[in-house]
Amino acid sequence: MKFIKTPVKGMCDMLPSDMRLREHIFAMIRETYATYGFMQIETPVMEHIENLTSKQGGDNEKLIFKVMKRGAELQRALDAGKQELADNGLRYDLTVPLSRYYANNKEKLPSPFKALQMGSVWRADNPQKGRFRQFTQCDIDILGDETNLAEIELITATSAMLTKIFAEIDITDFTIHINDRKILRAAALQAGFQEEDITSVLISLDKFDKIGLQGIRSELLENGYAASAVDAYLSMYENLQEGISCADFCKEISEEYLEASVVENMDEILACVKPMLADGVKIVFDPTLVRGMGYYTGPIFEISIDGYSFSIAGGGRYDEMIGKFSGQDVSASGFSIGFERIITILKDHMDKAGQSVQNGTVFLLDKKVSLERKQEIFAKAKQLRAEGNVVSIQPMRKNVKRQIEMLEAEGFQKFEKIYE
Amino acid sequence: MKFIKTPVKGMCDMLPSDMRLREHIFAMIRETYATYGFMQIETPVMEHIENLTSKQGGDNEKLIFKVMKRGAELQRALDAGKQELADNGLRYDLTVPLSRYYANNKEKLPSPFKALQMGSVWRADNPQKGRFRQFTQCDIDILGDETNLAEIELITATSAMLTKIFAEIDITDFTIHINDRKILRAAALQAGFQEEDITSVLISLDKFDKIGLQGIRSELLENGYAASAVDAYLSMYENLQEGISCADFCKEISEEYLEASVVENMDEILACVKPMLADGVKIVFDPTLVRGMGYYTGPIFEISIDGYSFSIAGGGRYDEMIGKFSGQDVSASGFSIGFERIITILKDHMDKAGQSVQNGTVFLLDKKVSLERKQEIFAKAKQLRAEGNVVSIQPMRKNVKRQIEMLEAEGFQKFEKIYE
Repeated sequence: MKFIKTPVKGMCDMLPSDMRLREHIFAMIRETYATYGFMQIETPVMEHIENLTSKQGGDNEKLIFKVMKRGAELQRALDAGKQELADNGLRYDLTVPLSRYYANNKEKLPSPFKALQMGSVWRADNPQKGRFRQFTQCDIDILGDETNLAEIELITATSAMLTKIFAEIDITDFTIHINDRKILRAAALQAGFQEEDITSVLISLDKFDKIGLQGIRSELLENGYAASAVDAYLSMYENLQEGISCADFCKEISEEYLEASVVENMDEILACVKPMLADGVKIVFDPTLVRGMGYYTGPIFEISIDGYSFSIAGGGRYDEMIGKFSGQDVSASGFSIGFERIITILKDHMDKAGQSVQNGTVFLLDKKVSLERKQEIFAKAKQLRAEGNVVSIQPMRKNVKRQIEMLEAEGFQKFEKIYE
Repeated sequence: MKFIKTPVKGMCDMLPSDMRLREHIFAMIRETYATYGFMQIETPVMEHIENLTSKQGGDNEKLIFKVMKRGAELQRALDAGKQELADNGLRYDLTVPLSRYYANNKEKLPSPFKALQMGSVWRADNPQKGRFRQFTQCDIDILGDETNLAEIELITATSAMLTKIFAEIDITDFTIHINDRKILRAAALQAGFQEEDITSVLISLDKFDKIGLQGIRSELLENGYAASAVDAYLSMYENLQEGISCADFCKEISEEYLEASVVENMDEILACVKPMLADGVKIVFDPTLVRGMGYYTGPIFEISIDGYSFSIAGGGRYDEMIGKFSGQDVSASGFSIGFERIITILKDHMDKAGQSVQNGTVFLLDKKVSLERKQEIFAKAKQLRAEGNVVSIQPMRKNVKRQIEMLEAEGFQKFEKIYE
């Protein structure tokens, strides 16, 4: 029999210490969002292949693990040749499933609906350090709330959750960046770009952190845009003052391109969120924030933490997506938490973040222990467990030193060797 | 765009009320087994197709959801024709993954290793009422303990867990049935069957509850066994007294077929488990208990509950399986909890088992509420949340009556309409 010990390529076995940390963080996420009225839901890991290849997933659609048809259906597809051999696929994100779920269950759910999803997603990506083919995503979404109450709830809840988690490794500081797709669009139009240029211009602006303004200038010129538009555009992003207000940034933009309500909306979000944040947490209007996905339609936001180049959470308003799936317009705003990134940061501080077995006692029983003595030990264990202690009863190994060392590594502290 | 609202055939969307119940039970399972020193682990949902088709999974191997090869590898397989098009498959149980996991990670784990797994498994079965193609399994296993301490820990921990869960719906009574494969084997040999008949004879005995002794007699005779052996065999199972001891049942069996240590082992398990059980819980030696899977080698056990025809947990010792995977002998004993069956029973008592949002307050904000008033509401919510309350802030809908009804259905209790 051919047997393979290692997990499938790019996927991980979780050791007990991994699981203790992950379950601890899952519980904190679950508890925090619950106090904000978010409700946990779950969808099957598989979706109809038609839904996964509906052009909402961008490049992720190239990375789908496809699940083969079975039985007669598979045979028909094989006989026909060139036909789709898969009927299902593993989800590559939690947004497509949420859209289908909402279309399927809307009548049974409150409106607005505040959803929390935690689950694995799969992408047949080239495995890299810290990037896996099965990984956990954690999304919160508010469906059916067209007001900025949605953004305020999403941002304050997520900030409260992160404050709680990072407190365990003595990190108190992180920054919430916020912008609005409508402002990004208006700035480009104001500079002289055309509506159809905007996607491409934003792809260049999105590289601000990596290539700087000069890099963006070269790229825009290379892409054939008029120097006048490029200059006008970049002048808006030059010499940005730290902490510039949304109104200040937008004051040169004509009302033709930007309704006053967009700036008011941003000011309200900032004014409501700021007093809710813990010491060390900042929220800043960041006119260079773009965020990759094309489906955002309003406020967008991202959370960064000093010393790490990646963002640990990101999201925004996407009012036009759920409707594409459900056939009915539904406003939506969501935040996706980089669960695996948070785990990475916590592991960097494992001395503080590690979760051990607490107050663990192990009774190590010699082979010759009598029935009566065993009964005593089990009764004693019952008592200790009832008091909330962890107790394990096991045979004493010849190499009892190693046996104890391995248990100590998991956090067990007390060891009682039981002889007759 | 073709878009399908319903989940994949035979799979379920979990509503918030489903998730509250499931998460509540997950937490109770996790906490109870933790106090017995079990450690949670997790494996990827996908396994190498070679491991899944290694003949350890019985009929489940026919029900595998196969994951297709990708890119050039898929093309090669298609071009070659008749080749395996899948490289992975979704796991159909948690035992094959545990075997691979232990082979892969043994050096990093204590020995004996007490594992807790909770996770989904997939079987492309014909969907039936209460039977799904994705469902949750919950397994505890002790690897590397050849003594009966393993069985005693497995049974007492599982019994404690079930007592805790069923207390919530005022059920206190359930029965643990226990037998030993070695006794089943010896009884058949004693009656005159041959070693090679045993599997088939046990398949008939396993139908005791369904077809009774007369049914078994007919089946054995139809299968061509000698009437003398059949009569001798069935006389052992006739007029069984309730609560018959293992020693009494075995007293006619020759030492040639059954070592005295097997009966001693059973007596020790019973003597150690009995004093640990809560009021209403019984453990009985049940000589007719067989359990389906072929891989058991020693004690086997099952838990039944009055009023339900299905068992809610089952397991046993399987000393020869892990070794087949890892190439090294490892004794093993495990218990598989019928998570979905427990959920079914709890839902039958939903009035008692339902989990609601506790102490939930909803602020419903009129459109015209000013920024200052919003800030006040958010500050008030912050205070309430800090005190452990659930608070949701959302826009007031035109149909506020229905809005409130749907929130009440989830358990929210207080509603404050906020006008300017």
